[in-house]
Formats: sequence, C-alpha cells, structure tokens
Amino acid sequence: MGTATPPPAQAQQTIEVAEPIESQKRPVKLTGKPELIREFLARFDVFLFDCDGVLWQGDKLLPKVVETLDVLRNRGKQIVFVTNNSTKSREDYKKKLAKLGIQAEIDEIFGSAYSAAIYISRVLCLPPTERVYILGEAGIEAELRSENITFLGGTDPADSGPMTPSDYETFGPDPTVTVVLCGLDRNICYKKLARAYQFLQNPNCRFLATNIDSTFPTHGKLFPGAGSMSAPLTYMLGGRQPVSLGKPSQAMMAAIEGKFRFDKSRTCMVGDRLNTDITFGIEGGLGGTLAVLTGVNKEDDFLKEGAEVVPDAYLEMLGDLAY
Amino acid sequence: MGTATPPPAQAQQTIEVAEPIESQKRPVKLTGKPELIREFLARFDVFLFDCDGVLWQGDKLLPKVVETLDVLRNRGKQIVFVTNNSTKSREDYKKKLAKLGIQAEIDEIFGSAYSAAIYISRVLCLPPTERVYILGEAGIEAELRSENITFLGGTDPADSGPMTPSDYETFGPDPTVTVVLCGLDRNICYKKLARAYQFLQNPNCRFLATNIDSTFPTHGKLFPGAGSMSAPLTYMLGGRQPVSLGKPSQAMMAAIEGKFRFDKSRTCMVGDRLNTDITFGIEGGLGGTLAVLTGVNKEDDFLKEGAEVVPDAYLEMLGDLAY
Repeated sequence: MGTATPPPAQAQQTIEVAEPIESQKRPVKLTGKPELIREFLARFDVFLFDCDGVLWQGDKLLPKVVETLDVLRNRGKQIVFVTNNSTKSREDYKKKLAKLGIQAEIDEIFGSAYSAAIYISRVLCLPPTERVYILGEAGIEAELRSENITFLGGTDPADSGPMTPSDYETFGPDPTVTVVLCGLDRNICYKKLARAYQFLQNPNCRFLATNIDSTFPTHGKLFPGAGSMSAPLTYMLGGRQPVSLGKPSQAMMAAIEGKFRFDKSRTCMVGDRLNTDITFGIEGGLGGTLAVLTGVNKEDDFLKEGAEVVPDAYLEMLGDLAY
Repeated sequence: MGTATPPPAQAQQTIEVAEPIESQKRPVKLTGKPELIREFLARFDVFLFDCDGVLWQGDKLLPKVVETLDVLRNRGKQIVFVTNNSTKSREDYKKKLAKLGIQAEIDEIFGSAYSAAIYISRVLCLPPTERVYILGEAGIEAELRSENITFLGGTDPADSGPMTPSDYETFGPDPTVTVVLCGLDRNICYKKLARAYQFLQNPNCRFLATNIDSTFPTHGKLFPGAGSMSAPLTYMLGGRQPVSLGKPSQAMMAAIEGKFRFDKSRTCMVGDRLNTDITFGIEGGLGGTLAVLTGVNKEDDFLKEGAEVVPDAYLEMLGDLAY
C-alpha cells in the first residue's frame, strides 16, 4: 500500500497552478492562485455582478470588495450590477451601494424593475394609450416612469385597505390595461390581487413579473419573494406563468444586451446562486461564470456527482480576486 | 332513408320515463319527470347540499328552494349544508340561511372552517400545549374556539399592517405552533405570509387549508379564493401542498362522517360544480350525485364526449324537485 500513497496536497496544487486554465477540470477554484486569476480575468472585458451574497450579506459589505472592483476598473473592465431586487430603482440602488462604500454610476446598475421597464417600452413597445397595473413597490414605479410608461396600482393608497362593496361591483377587465406587472410587494393585499386578476381576464392583457424568486433573503432568513406575489394569480389563472424579467430569464439578458451591446463571449457572470446567477450566465451563452461561496450555494452543490449547474470557476469570496 | 328517421323527441322522452332509473344511461335528467324524481329520492336518506349556485346565486334565493327542502324534510330526509366557504362559522351560516328564508339547525351545517377544526381536534388530536397559526378570517377562529383549539394570527391586529424592523428579527419557527391553517383571508398581507412561512420551517408543523378553491365567486365575478392564500406558501415551500379540509378532499368527507355517521350508500351529494361537489360525492363512494345547472357547470360539461366527471342525475334547478 505504501507505494500507492498519493503525493502530498501541496505538490498537487503546484502542478495545477502550472497548467493553463482551459485544460483544467471545471469548476476551477481560483482562491489563492494568482496565475489562474490573472489568466481568468484576461478572458473578459465585462463582469456582470449579482449583489446580495456576492458584494454584501444583509447590510455588511464583504471583505476586500471595494479593492476588487478597483482592480477590475483599473484594468479597464466594464462592471454591471445585476439584481433581481425590484423594490429599488437604479437611483435607490446607487445610494445603497454608496452607503456600503461602493461607488457606482446609474448606468452600471441593472435591476429587474428596470429590466421590466425596458421590456415593456422597447420590446412590447406599449402604445401611450395603454397602461400597466403594478403589483409592487416604488422601485417599479420609478423605473416605469423613467421609460414614460403610464401605470396604475403600485403604491396608490386607493389600492390598499379592505375591499369595499363597490370594489366588488366595479372591478373588472379594462381595455386600456394591457400589462399586469408583479414584483416584490410588502404591502400586498386582497384588493390588489383581485384587481390584477380582473385585468388579466382581458385576453390581451400580458402577465409579467420582475422576477419569480420564491423567497427574499434578509436578516439571515427567507421571506416571501416576488414570485410569491404572482403565485396566487398563476393559481387563479389555472397555471399561467408570468414572463419573468429577472435572472435566470433570458428576457433580462436581452434587455441588458439591448442597453450595453457587449460581446457575450468576453463577458462573465459572477454570483452566489446556481439556479439564478450561474444558470443565467450559462443559458445566456456568456464566455464564463464565476461562483462565490458567500451566499446561498456551497462548494458541494456544484462539486457533487450529478450537479446540474456547474460554474467555470469559483472563489471562497469575491475579495480573493484582489490577492 | 325515410324508414331510418328516429321517432320524434316527444315519443323518446315518454319511453325514457317509463323505464326504471337504474337502466337509464347516466346522467339522467330529472326535470319534469315526476316518476323518476320519486324513484331517485326514494334511494336516499341523507342529502348533502352545496349552497352557492344550488340554493342561491349571490344574495338571491333560487326559485322553490324552500319548498324543495320542505318536501325532503317532510319525507324524513336528513339535510346537511356542506360549504367550502371558510369565512363564516356555522352560526354565521345559519344566520345567512335564515336571512334568505331557509330555516336550518346548526347541526345541519358543515363548513370547511368547522371541518378543519374537527380535523385538528379529533384526527390530529392536537395537544393543548400546541397552537394553530391562522391565515384566515373570523369564521375559522369561531370554529377553532368551538373545539377548544388554541390559535394565533387570524384577525389579530398585530398581524396586519406593514412589517417592522423587529418583525424581520423576531419572526421564526416556534415549537408550540404545529399547524398553519389557511382559509380565504380578505385581509391577507405580507406579514401573515411571512409569519406562516417561518412557522412552516419547523419540520413538525402541518400545513392545512380549509379548502383550495382558486377563486371565490361573488357579484357575478371571480375573486381570489382560499387556495390563492396558500398558493404563495406552496410556492415558497418548493411545491408542498396543504392538506385540504374542503370539497373535494375526502378529509372533509371523513369529518362529516365522523359527526353524522350516515349510511354512505343512502346519501346523495347535490351541487353545481363537477370538480368539487360531484367529484366529492363520487370519490367519497356516496350512493348518488345530483347536479344542478344554476351554478358553475353547464349541461355540456358532463354530456360531452370524454367528460371526466359525470353525475348520476341532474336538474335545471333544485326547485324542480318540488314539482
């Protein structure tokens, strides 16, 4: 048995580092391997970043995130922050980033509320006579406004509170309301669900969602996500699913591409969730995907036998790039 | 071709009426056929009645309903009103029936809120140290109280309104909350959904629903039903379905049987919906099912080729029994 003993781990690692990244088995662990990191970064001009679980956890910035973004910017890489959070507009998000110490331009931010606005104005080309019913918060309203889209619902106080007898009489389809857009709405109520459902009785009314994440992670726990706002409507509509404008939907990729016109083969998606971020990058045909272990998924989720979604490379944490 | 002409419709009908009901092809139309009606009624001692769409539409009593119930009572038939409406307790329902001119005893009423209470107290045998979280209205609270079940949530004002920062901190599983019960809740809100989801993180917590009707018909339209209250939780829980205590779930049949101890073979379910009422009777192995055309389903729904749910007999309207 003595002769079959494998070489010590240290020796193995040295050999790995010497080999070019392409010849290594996916996923390649980059943490602590400067040569591989340099080689990996050189393959891309654009980095799409998921935020929560990658840049921060809850309200805490993760170590060396600012340094890492500086390294990328100094090497001329374009950075885009891509988030499914629909409660914040790009303006709100810029403030949130700044509060955490990350300087960002509005144009570097791409949220699912903005994605939905772009889709409605530039893909659906909604005529000015038609309106969007919002089941969602102020972030969606701000982004629809930025694309000059007329809307109703949302944070309108008339849509909160209990149903009145006249609501039961007057709620119904409206030929001018041709889109129902659902996002995370922490003021969801029966009246909004009832109204959205009535609008969707119009066969010409589209059913959209900023994203369909079932849960919303905060305070170290899971709370209802945007997909749980559209779920009652899907159930009432006999299983009809909304078109999602968030990761991993390629409708979001199309919206990002429409705006930035980047070379996909030289773009890398960075994220913590295999079934949203990494899937988004793989299905979008990006040049690469990079997972970090500071969020939802752990190493074993993609190293295990039969793992369905495997990134090209991974890091213990994003800050490991700024070695 | 002349000799192959079928006999006129009138002649056909006369022949049908003369044949015994058993030898006729299902479903048998009873309207206008006194002999068949007498024969049909003689087969049963107990009639389970769906209410909305059978006895009334919205707030309007259907013709000759009171006379029909009198006919049945005068012939010694036991009557049970079986409703999926969970917003009303049996006491509330008795008042609603009285307001419409129908006299009924509390013990003749079986609603899905009561069904849930019976299930929790007599099937789950919930110990007094364990509690039920209610996502629902006062009818559920009244019925749980009638079975001495401890509960929280429901109409408690602390469970309405926006989430507070401390809610995000404090919400979590609670070993004393071992049942989450969802019914129609016209005051549904994010806080209740979040709390219910957190309780369901306890692997010992059961997930129940008074019923899973996707919609709630009123004012000639459809509004969100009880099943649309549990749908976001099902979505968050990766597809986990609640145990339903309403039609067509046989858990409700078991609860009715536990209370009334009737002979199923001499019991008939009367209803307007094929996928709840008639399915409930067929799957429950009742002696018969009787559809009426004053509610959701129409004649063609069960006469068409390949119809999946076919009642034994049907009437234009319930009042046709009181010929």
